[in-house]
Amino acid sequence: MKHLLLAAAAASLVLPVHAEEPAPVPSPGEIAAAAPAGDWVSIAPSDLLVMDLAPDAKGNSRRVVIQLMPAPFSQGWIGNIRRLAAAHWWDGTSVNRVQDNYVAQWGDATEKKALPEGLATIPESGYETSRIAYHGQPGSGGATRRLLSAPVATDAYSSQAGFLDGWPVARKKDMVWPVHCYAMVGVGRNMSPDTGTGAELYAVIGHAPRHLDRNIAVVGRVISGIEYLSSLPRGTGALGFYEEEAQRVGIEKIRLAAELPFAEQPRFEFLSTESDSFARYADARQNRRDPFFIKPAGGADICNVPVPVRAVGAR
Amino acid sequence: MKHLLLAAAAASLVLPVHAEEPAPVPSPGEIAAAAPAGDWVSIAPSDLLVMDLAPDAKGNSRRVVIQLMPAPFSQGWIGNIRRLAAAHWWDGTSVNRVQDNYVAQWGDATEKKALPEGLATIPESGYETSRIAYHGQPGSGGATRRLLSAPVATDAYSSQAGFLDGWPVARKKDMVWPVHCYAMVGVGRNMSPDTGTGAELYAVIGHAPRHLDRNIAVVGRVISGIEYLSSLPRGTGALGFYEEEAQRVGIEKIRLAAELPFAEQPRFEFLSTESDSFARYADARQNRRDPFFIKPAGGADICNVPVPVRAVGAR
Repeated sequence: MKHLLLAAAAASLVLPVHAEEPAPVPSPGEIAAAAPAGDWVSIAPSDLLVMDLAPDAKGNSRRVVIQLMPAPFSQGWIGNIRRLAAAHWWDGTSVNRVQDNYVAQWGDATEKKALPEGLATIPESGYETSRIAYHGQPGSGGATRRLLSAPVATDAYSSQAGFLDGWPVARKKDMVWPVHCYAMVGVGRNMSPDTGTGAELYAVIGHAPRHLDRNIAVVGRVISGIEYLSSLPRGTGALGFYEEEAQRVGIEKIRLAAELPFAEQPRFEFLSTESDSFARYADARQNRRDPFFIKPAGGADICNVPVPVRAVGAR
Repeated sequence: MKHLLLAAAAASLVLPVHAEEPAPVPSPGEIAAAAPAGDWVSIAPSDLLVMDLAPDAKGNSRRVVIQLMPAPFSQGWIGNIRRLAAAHWWDGTSVNRVQDNYVAQWGDATEKKALPEGLATIPESGYETSRIAYHGQPGSGGATRRLLSAPVATDAYSSQAGFLDGWPVARKKDMVWPVHCYAMVGVGRNMSPDTGTGAELYAVIGHAPRHLDRNIAVVGRVISGIEYLSSLPRGTGALGFYEEEAQRVGIEKIRLAAELPFAEQPRFEFLSTESDSFARYADARQNRRDPFFIKPAGGADICNVPVPVRAVGAR
């Protein structure tokens, strides 16, 4: 009974496979791990936001790495975020809110720290990316893009959910927007029509709160270190805000990776969502046939098909 | 910028509402809080499993309360769980695995502790409840039950998702099964056809792993104290198992509430999923029109409509 719940699937890889036995069906993770180098896309250092939290009680460092979304998504807020990082604005701020099954949120708890000059004000229309070209159809939004719908054509929140350039998105007619899956990063705001500046950010640490789609800007996703946010003590104040200053978790610094010395820049790749490997990975996510599983589900929701990301050289 | 992200919606309740202003639309939580007493269903002490973890580093107690599923779901495993609790079998065991965005799992880390006599062996067919009566149609599974489909008729994993007697379920033809939402509790097992005894349990602490539906038995849900599991440090071993004994979190005891002295029994109620209040709550979950929200989603997945539960007297 050591392994339980999925462990046996991994263990089966080291069992001898006899000629008369069928080869075990690979798991989604095994399919991704076996993808050829050409199916992986390098993430530019200018798209990586590196957040160093204060060390934990045992002195262990806690680094969270966020990948920022590419155009055409949320670029107004992301421009602000790059400016805030360049100004070292978050240094000395803190994680102020951790609400169970929802979000961990960080920024300036004093609400008095002056913002850098030149931040853009973004209208609500920035939540959606309209008239984007998808499925090979030309559109006015720029270059032709392919919106992959398989395997998640069924979505309670849209006409079609799928992947665009490595990101989970949803669509109604010609409107396409990024969706709030686990570990996605969004921009805190006050009441509409305020859409937030990007100085106050949060990461999803629970079941995908898709009702926030098109109501809050999604700007990226945590690709490393989400556990340093998701395992923080939950705040006991309203909405999970910490009630005492000592409960807040300090942020030592946030930098764009591009600003770090070259040797210190973290390097990551994601599995191209247009690759054959991803298609097989996504199929396996919706139909688990690897050992341990009995009944393939026959489908998956968009947030249960997380795009594989790996640290370069960490395989 | 104090409130951000939903805080403003709660704050709006204390603002004076002038005659010329439309009354704010209530949030889902406000709808549930306003539900009349008759819409709430008391949970029997024999259906409550009370798990006391060892106190945290600061000496604070950590109590997790689990509601066991009613018939016809998973009753074989639940019978075993009642027997294990009556034998005080879990006392001195531990939480041994915490995998980010997945599960926290507990049981006997030594794998050598003798199980009580008389535990049932349950076949794989126990994962599904077949021929259950739903939508008022008679079936051979017992009394007629109504499977509420609104508002989550769209489900990537089934023909219909909905609620039955207060629990989230999915259906294909005449097969109905409970689903793996956040905080649901399931039975760890090894490779099929082993279906587990119930001695090894886990709670979902991330995005609903619906691919586990019909592959693992769902036996209940954490209705209080999920944060004591979801905020535990993630295990660094394979599948999130803790690698060192000192990392495990001790379980002082697990009891059925019915075994506790009457005055110490925790008391909870859930909002009847057949009540008008629940229908309005579920509609509001799929169409947030309360202040702060701009675009109602027009739908929700089954796990984003958690059934409201409250401690009696805690309002």
